Amino acid sequence: MLNNNSFSDRLETAVRAKKSAVLVGLDPRFESLPPSCKGSFLDFCKGVIDVVAPLVPAVKPQVAFFEQHGAGGMAVLQMVVQYARQKGLLVILDGKRNDIGTTAAAYADGMLGEKSIWGGDAITVSPYLGDDSLTPFFETAADRGAGVFVLVKTSNPGGAMLQDLIAADGKSIYRHVAEYVQTASLKTLGAGQYGSIGAVVGATWPEQLAELRTLMPNVWFLVPGFGAQGGSAKDVAPAFDSEGLGAIVNNSRGIIFAHTQKRYADLDWQRAVEAATVEMIEQLNCVSH
Amino acid sequence: MLNNNSFSDRLETAVRAKKSAVLVGLDPRFESLPPSCKGSFLDFCKGVIDVVAPLVPAVKPQVAFFEQHGAGGMAVLQMVVQYARQKGLLVILDGKRNDIGTTAAAYADGMLGEKSIWGGDAITVSPYLGDDSLTPFFETAADRGAGVFVLVKTSNPGGAMLQDLIAADGKSIYRHVAEYVQTASLKTLGAGQYGSIGAVVGATWPEQLAELRTLMPNVWFLVPGFGAQGGSAKDVAPAFDSEGLGAIVNNSRGIIFAHTQKRYADLDWQRAVEAATVEMIEQLNCVSH
Repeated sequence: MLNNNSFSDRLETAVRAKKSAVLVGLDPRFESLPPSCKGSFLDFCKGVIDVVAPLVPAVKPQVAFFEQHGAGGMAVLQMVVQYARQKGLLVILDGKRNDIGTTAAAYADGMLGEKSIWGGDAITVSPYLGDDSLTPFFETAADRGAGVFVLVKTSNPGGAMLQDLIAADGKSIYRHVAEYVQTASLKTLGAGQYGSIGAVVGATWPEQLAELRTLMPNVWFLVPGFGAQGGSAKDVAPAFDSEGLGAIVNNSRGIIFAHTQKRYADLDWQRAVEAATVEMIEQLNCVSH
Repeated sequence: MLNNNSFSDRLETAVRAKKSAVLVGLDPRFESLPPSCKGSFLDFCKGVIDVVAPLVPAVKPQVAFFEQHGAGGMAVLQMVVQYARQKGLLVILDGKRNDIGTTAAAYADGMLGEKSIWGGDAITVSPYLGDDSLTPFFETAADRGAGVFVLVKTSNPGGAMLQDLIAADGKSIYRHVAEYVQTASLKTLGAGQYGSIGAVVGATWPEQLAELRTLMPNVWFLVPGFGAQGGSAKDVAPAFDSEGLGAIVNNSRGIIFAHTQKRYADLDWQRAVEAATVEMIEQLNCVSH
């Protein structure tokens, strides 16, 4: 039975309940805010959350856009996370943090779990520093029923520079990371098929997405690159299992700044957010079942 | 002639003026603070800075230990950076940030340069996301006379997991990164031999340190792993050129928590910081010239 003690089970419960695999990225930028938000990241993010909370399982605040505005920006991030949690959303803090030993443990302590100061249900981390830099995140996540998404194959073209290098054993670097993540996630299986150690796998590489789905059968995928970066619903189809589970697909600009798109020009900005979210949910549901 | 418009020149000027290649890591932890600081990260960091400002070229606040305490901790970080700058120290913000495109640009905008909100003279970044994730950092750094240190070969044992894999062309992954960093740094040469794109190379791998010095003749090294992690002055000797330039060697716990060491037990905590700093400067000067 699914329960609330594991991130993977909570995510599965939320995806089933909302019948939606859409992850809404909260990437506030002053220049794109609707005028009615009067430059307030907090009002804007709350406005997005109010609209998407009944529709999607989770939101993903991009830490960079809050950190860019100093400690004040970070204070807003804390309020945004709390508000999203109150509205029943899972919160994935996208900070791509990484460091060694006790420093990694400090990041994990601050960010992971309902009772942590940043309150993330899950976070993203970068693997270049290797296994002993990842285990502190995994351990804290396990203690707190939280999740960790490890960068495996990123959506940007430049990701190929290191990730696609082929090692002497014939395997790509991203495959080395993928096998490590699969092994780690297997140790964290909840009641369902998936563990709480996830992988970031870009929508822009459909072939690798299919390869990685096979390599990581017990790993939730966080899929960036949909929409603005060029990934389509068809491209992300291989990320899902036969029940439509196993992946959440991120969209940031395409949803939160939908009011700037011609097709939604007649709508109030929040109705534009709603329309773009519903449209993406339907697109994904067509390919994921 | 060296000038203030490039990070590399400012670092060279500072290393020559202080006759010191020691980088003091500011890693505050409640459990190790001297009692007289009464749990204040700000008082503690200011106390360290007061002692080391005349002795070393730069300090390196570890962002994780401030972020662990929420937006309030981050506000303290901003004050610590400002205080260090006022005292004439260069500030390297150790956040190991990384992301793609405009998100990387947001991190860079917030952290790089005197007039940025976080005020770093330089920052550390992680390379797993590849070249198009690094160039936004390099571009902002160039605009602002700031520096970027890219993780190349880290000090932890687990760093070997990905960094030491050998690609099909016979080169290790860390060597791929090193060659990229050397090329990028060459484009940023100041008046001296070094550019403003640096590399993080651990003290715990002396053989690779020598290999990387040869591969990156125009790159400042930020060398972690000295002291507590096992690296000695002899181990880091290959990082220096014949003038004793080209590397700064970090020590965090060994300096800032010197008061917890038996050998300094008779000293006030700030005198312990001073004694440990002077001792490390002397050790490095013996091997770097």
